[in-house]
Amino acid sequence: MSEVHFARAALIGIGLVGSSLAHVLRRDKLADHIVACARRPETLAAVERLGLADTVTRDPAEAVKDADLVVIGTPLSAYAEIGRRVGPALAPGAILTDVGSVKGAAIRDLAPSLPPGVHLVPGHPVAGTEHSGPEAGFAEMFRDRWCILTPLPEGDAPALDKVTRLWQAAGMKVVTMDPEHHDMVLAITSHLPHLIAYTIVGTATDLEDTLKSEVIKFSAGGFRDFTRIAASDPVMWRDVFLNNREAVLEMLQRFTEDLTALQRAIRWGEGDKLEDLFTRTRAIRRSIIEAKQA
Amino acid sequence: MSEVHFARAALIGIGLVGSSLAHVLRRDKLADHIVACARRPETLAAVERLGLADTVTRDPAEAVKDADLVVIGTPLSAYAEIGRRVGPALAPGAILTDVGSVKGAAIRDLAPSLPPGVHLVPGHPVAGTEHSGPEAGFAEMFRDRWCILTPLPEGDAPALDKVTRLWQAAGMKVVTMDPEHHDMVLAITSHLPHLIAYTIVGTATDLEDTLKSEVIKFSAGGFRDFTRIAASDPVMWRDVFLNNREAVLEMLQRFTEDLTALQRAIRWGEGDKLEDLFTRTRAIRRSIIEAKQA
Repeated sequence: MSEVHFARAALIGIGLVGSSLAHVLRRDKLADHIVACARRPETLAAVERLGLADTVTRDPAEAVKDADLVVIGTPLSAYAEIGRRVGPALAPGAILTDVGSVKGAAIRDLAPSLPPGVHLVPGHPVAGTEHSGPEAGFAEMFRDRWCILTPLPEGDAPALDKVTRLWQAAGMKVVTMDPEHHDMVLAITSHLPHLIAYTIVGTATDLEDTLKSEVIKFSAGGFRDFTRIAASDPVMWRDVFLNNREAVLEMLQRFTEDLTALQRAIRWGEGDKLEDLFTRTRAIRRSIIEAKQA
Repeated sequence: MSEVHFARAALIGIGLVGSSLAHVLRRDKLADHIVACARRPETLAAVERLGLADTVTRDPAEAVKDADLVVIGTPLSAYAEIGRRVGPALAPGAILTDVGSVKGAAIRDLAPSLPPGVHLVPGHPVAGTEHSGPEAGFAEMFRDRWCILTPLPEGDAPALDKVTRLWQAAGMKVVTMDPEHHDMVLAITSHLPHLIAYTIVGTATDLEDTLKSEVIKFSAGGFRDFTRIAASDPVMWRDVFLNNREAVLEMLQRFTEDLTALQRAIRWGEGDKLEDLFTRTRAIRRSIIEAKQA
């Protein structure tokens, strides 16, 4: 793995992923200058306090000026507007990448605004925690996880190579994939699990107050793992579901059919069906442990 | 907290919970003699290899002979038969408790077989991991978790006190509760989360093979937390659903309604509804962290 280096890296949106990347850039001295851009002054104050950037700004156009690397790390709903604002300010030859969880929507909202000579490399580092904001970031978050890049057919090969090496420097294994395929895979591995976790925690919050306090007390029986997932950033996740609607609805439909079948098995006391499924699901866990993703 | 001590503790069924309790009994010298009973010779061989018991047997009646403490830790479907077999062999004054996840069913299946003078104290230490079998146990599993006891109205107060002190010695906080109420609380905090985790992992195993290998690879996005839960013991969980049918179906019905509402919000692009829910669920997570159950 050869070194990768940027003169000026602009991080547009600096939450959990953006700040973790800033830690990596700092640690490995991968950029001469880091500029962080966020909408909220509190965020920029935190970035300055943590020393995550050399300069900060609320203006995306100012942030990307002279940058050879631009990384968008905002919720997806901000992409189109950011694209419009940074497009005219981007330097020829600049690489623009992102870390968003839906790649079809990222391309749809960014590509039209980019001038010729600017290289779009859509990306998704599949790593995170339930915490958000610049204080939550840490360089090791990416270690041994996968990063999926979804380059355009007409994309620039050297730009793809540089973004690949950037995430490799962060400790990630990098693969490329079709954006539509990415969105389908993530619908089942990430979007549907989050939707379900949000739902069950919501179901519990609607219980009568006395029962609710007991739910918190006895959450160690399984529920608390769902609350961790359901503590993820609300705006980011709202945008994921709005922007990966078809794939999420398709996986949700399959899930609902399977759940209905289990419900029926419980109602009719069909123990064999339950045991069969519960035995099959154990095998998937073993595969994940073997793939060192546990 | 005063000391609790038993002359002879019989552990009927020695999986994750039974073996963890054996570690506690050993560590704190809470029993002069520990006898372990299991159906499968491999299990008893493991118990002997691990030094978890002084004697082992496949015969529940032999195990409980002269025991002043009997702890049933088998799947729920074995309870009625165990009750029938140990009933005539139990010593007067013996305490019989269990660790099963459904208390109504535990009482239904055990109480009729017990002779007068034997004290039934149904219990449920709410602690565990996704691993099973005697190799999986460890004394610290119970530390700072809750144990729910569901004593019968006519139950013996000194027996309840001894079982309370047993779990306190294991590091647990002990509460008593009505068995029906226990089964309702656990339906939402434990049984439904497991059912949903099993379902989504099952949905993923039914995907085409190429997609399935990617699900494993990219599981860090949320899915892997579900696979951990869905790796729990299949027979134990089959029995939980069959024996807590009404409460599970009731909670499942609420969950399904909530999921359908979210599905509709996604289909119609109602971002506000999604964001509202996702913000509310964060608060529950904070409560769990504050309650030190995270």
